[in-house]
Amino acid sequence: MSSEPRAGAVEKQTGRLESFSDGVFAVAITLLVFNLQVPQGATSVSALGRALLQHWPSYLTFMTSFATILIMWASHHGIFKLIYKADTPFLFANGLLLLLVTVVPFPTSLVTQYLTTPAAKLACAVYAGVFVVINVAYNLLWWAAVRQRRLLRPAVTPRQVKRLTRHILLGLPVYLLATLLAFWNPYVSLGLCSCLWIFWAFAFYERSPSPRRLAGGQEVETAPESDA
Amino acid sequence: MSSEPRAGAVEKQTGRLESFSDGVFAVAITLLVFNLQVPQGATSVSALGRALLQHWPSYLTFMTSFATILIMWASHHGIFKLIYKADTPFLFANGLLLLLVTVVPFPTSLVTQYLTTPAAKLACAVYAGVFVVINVAYNLLWWAAVRQRRLLRPAVTPRQVKRLTRHILLGLPVYLLATLLAFWNPYVSLGLCSCLWIFWAFAFYERSPSPRRLAGGQEVETAPESDA
Amino acid sequence: MSSEPRAGAVEKQTGRLESFSDGVFAVAITLLVFNLQVPQGATSVSALGRALLQHWPSYLTFMTSFATILIMWASHHGIFKLIYKADTPFLFANGLLLLLVTVVPFPTSLVTQYLTTPAAKLACAVYAGVFVVINVAYNLLWWAAVRQRRLLRPAVTPRQVKRLTRHILLGLPVYLLATLLAFWNPYVSLGLCSCLWIFWAFAFYERSPSPRRLAGGQEVETAPESDA
Amino acid sequence: MSSEPRAGAVEKQTGRLESFSDGVFAVAITLLVFNLQVPQGATSVSALGRALLQHWPSYLTFMTSFATILIMWASHHGIFKLIYKADTPFLFANGLLLLLVTVVPFPTSLVTQYLTTPAAKLACAVYAGVFVVINVAYNLLWWAAVRQRRLLRPAVTPRQVKRLTRHILLGLPVYLLATLLAFWNPYVSLGLCSCLWIFWAFAFYERSPSPRRLAGGQEVETAPESDA
Repeated sequence: MSSEPRAGAVEKQTGRLESFSDGVFAVAITLLVFNLQVPQGATSVSALGRALLQHWPSYLTFMTSFATILIMWASHHGIFKLIYKADTPFLFANGLLLLLVTVVPFPTSLVTQYLTTPAAKLACAVYAGVFVVINVAYNLLWWAAVRQRRLLRPAVTPRQVKRLTRHILLGLPVYLLATLLAFWNPYVSLGLCSCLWIFWAFAFYERSPSPRRLAGGQEVETAPESDA
Repeated sequence: MSSEPRAGAVEKQTGRLESFSDGVFAVAITLLVFNLQVPQGATSVSALGRALLQHWPSYLTFMTSFATILIMWASHHGIFKLIYKADTPFLFANGLLLLLVTVVPFPTSLVTQYLTTPAAKLACAVYAGVFVVINVAYNLLWWAAVRQRRLLRPAVTPRQVKRLTRHILLGLPVYLLATLLAFWNPYVSLGLCSCLWIFWAFAFYERSPSPRRLAGGQEVETAPESDA
Repeated sequence: MSSEPRAGAVEKQTGRLESFSDGVFAVAITLLVFNLQVPQGATSVSALGRALLQHWPSYLTFMTSFATILIMWASHHGIFKLIYKADTPFLFANGLLLLLVTVVPFPTSLVTQYLTTPAAKLACAVYAGVFVVINVAYNLLWWAAVRQRRLLRPAVTPRQVKRLTRHILLGLPVYLLATLLAFWNPYVSLGLCSCLWIFWAFAFYERSPSPRRLAGGQEVETAPESDA
Repeated sequence: MSSEPRAGAVEKQTGRLESFSDGVFAVAITLLVFNLQVPQGATSVSALGRALLQHWPSYLTFMTSFATILIMWASHHGIFKLIYKADTPFLFANGLLLLLVTVVPFPTSLVTQYLTTPAAKLACAVYAGVFVVINVAYNLLWWAAVRQRRLLRPAVTPRQVKRLTRHILLGLPVYLLATLLAFWNPYVSLGLCSCLWIFWAFAFYERSPSPRRLAGGQEVETAPESDA
């Protein structure tokens, strides 16, 4: 490798790590569809209609979890865009994150099955609790990336690092709150998780590169999540 | 990034978005095979033969859905070939589309199970209805791409944009009609969906680059769906 | 695109088609593991041992199918290495092939369940019959690639084309024979399929580039399947 | 191809082999989540809590298997980073390895189901035994890569080869021991497997490129597993 990192060099060093991660994200997000159970034994149009409507918790959790994994992928992508290469701690932090990504269908399925039963509180607490751990993994990954600035691309500014750090940390108190709230009201807990990704969607939007910034800017200067 | 976008730059900015999308398409299309249920407990060759033949609705819906996801992938590919980079609305439109791609096995399984029962009408209406929503998502994605021409590659001509817009919009009335027709005759509804992808296959074919056009042409000048 | 195709240009035009195909192959080959059923309710070491041994048909078909999909991937890769770009017939031939790749777990599961029952003959005939259709799809794909030489890389020699044509056509009579033989003896049918991929493995081996050929050769001059 | 292998040339010749392998790894690691069964029919928070806690063997084996496949991917990646191109024996050794990667969910599921039953000893022996075979496959793959130095990148030093050889061979006696120990105590067997990947994690860490080595070094000079 030459002394100054070029775009090609960046691709090369984390290429397979990204493609493997993309594969895990893609499979995990697609497996969520198994939560959509086809009703059995309906014998008429109205019976099938009723059966389909009764499955509304599965549609709700499917869409929530899909959106969450999508946001997770976008954040993962945002982090990797600032990364120049990977070392071992970063590799294992990424592995922990991927483990948790693949786990997402499990709490999703748990909520789907228990949302309308008396055990809903625990199911939703487990759901939000898993996202607490996922958020911790993101913070670990980001910390592994920035702790020595060795892995970051040279053009990344301290302001960008600070912004992304804040962005990732935000999820921690919200998910913790959602976990606690689940024991009071499971729907409020799920709603809070949903609010978080709606908020993030808008936060993403605000960071889109404006024409002005694009004019004098540089690729890495724009926010990492702003372009896919 | 230099001021004039080169081919390499295009690859770079939407590379991971495409590879993640490819992964989701690949998993969703492969999961369709779960609709092919192995008959249980047949005790002779003739019993197994009868059992296999009885599953004809599953073969029909499997092939229809496979072809549909394949066409969806080809359209997705066609759109991305004209794209220079991605912004946040485009990213979320793509996410919505991927969500719907992963949903396809669900209505497929629904039709497989209810096609020969009295509830077939609703099952087929749901099937066609899902494709209505998918078509809306494609229109959103394409609209997010062209609304400011910021994301389009500079060489893309207005004629190309118009052609693809028409191409994508076509599905909307057809799928809506298929949804309504399902309540009259489920087979007609499925047949209409099948006709649509046969028509698209021929439409693809017509747009293949002719040798003449290739001679003086340019890569983006040829229709986006014409080469893989 | 410049007038003379370079390596980079080749990558670019079929890159996403290959990555999507790779995804489908990877998922299909991994889903085969669902044929390995964990025995239920064994209460002792010896009971579990017996239960595991009784599942030998599932191990046999799992390994056979895995090897077959692997060979299919290698052939697919071999074809794509000679391809310069893709047109619509090629795209659809590839789609048909992918459909059949995803189907493989179905006949595999069928054989797994019926190999030791009186219905084994039909199960094995269906198994071999699916591979007949798969082979037809390969011949279609290859025919779509060579029919006008438009899609082939310029450096591909007629001898290479002839060799690959023969290679792909070989499977057709063998699989047809295996389909017929299944009604006489299912084990012979499966064995013939296995022989085919053992033969192909050796055929692959023979075509490996020898040091001599490498010295004066050119990348495309060596057999397409010889290097991954 | 020019006479001296460049970085681009390396990418090109094993690119699809790597992307297919990544796909298989990604699907296999994600399918492990099916071992996390959602408890059925719990009617209260405490009943669901008890049911979830009772599933601890599934959490244990899920995490162990995930970490193991992750380490396997890292090793696979480490081997491929030293590879210049692939020949047929290498291709088939890689195929055998992928077969075994997809098998991992099977022994994992076996242990999950039998860890708390009298049949645990056999279940754990099968689990460790599968990893013995996996380790043999890695040794085959590595042997196929180094046997003629034809496939290795020119810059790879004999010291690097020796180090990786030792690294891969280490697993063989440990997994064999774990297989035998399973018949004495299944927990000790699982624990030994876990110790192995903890050890490997630290071994990875030690091989991280130090700033000093990076300064005067060269990309391939650093340990193959040190950067992703």
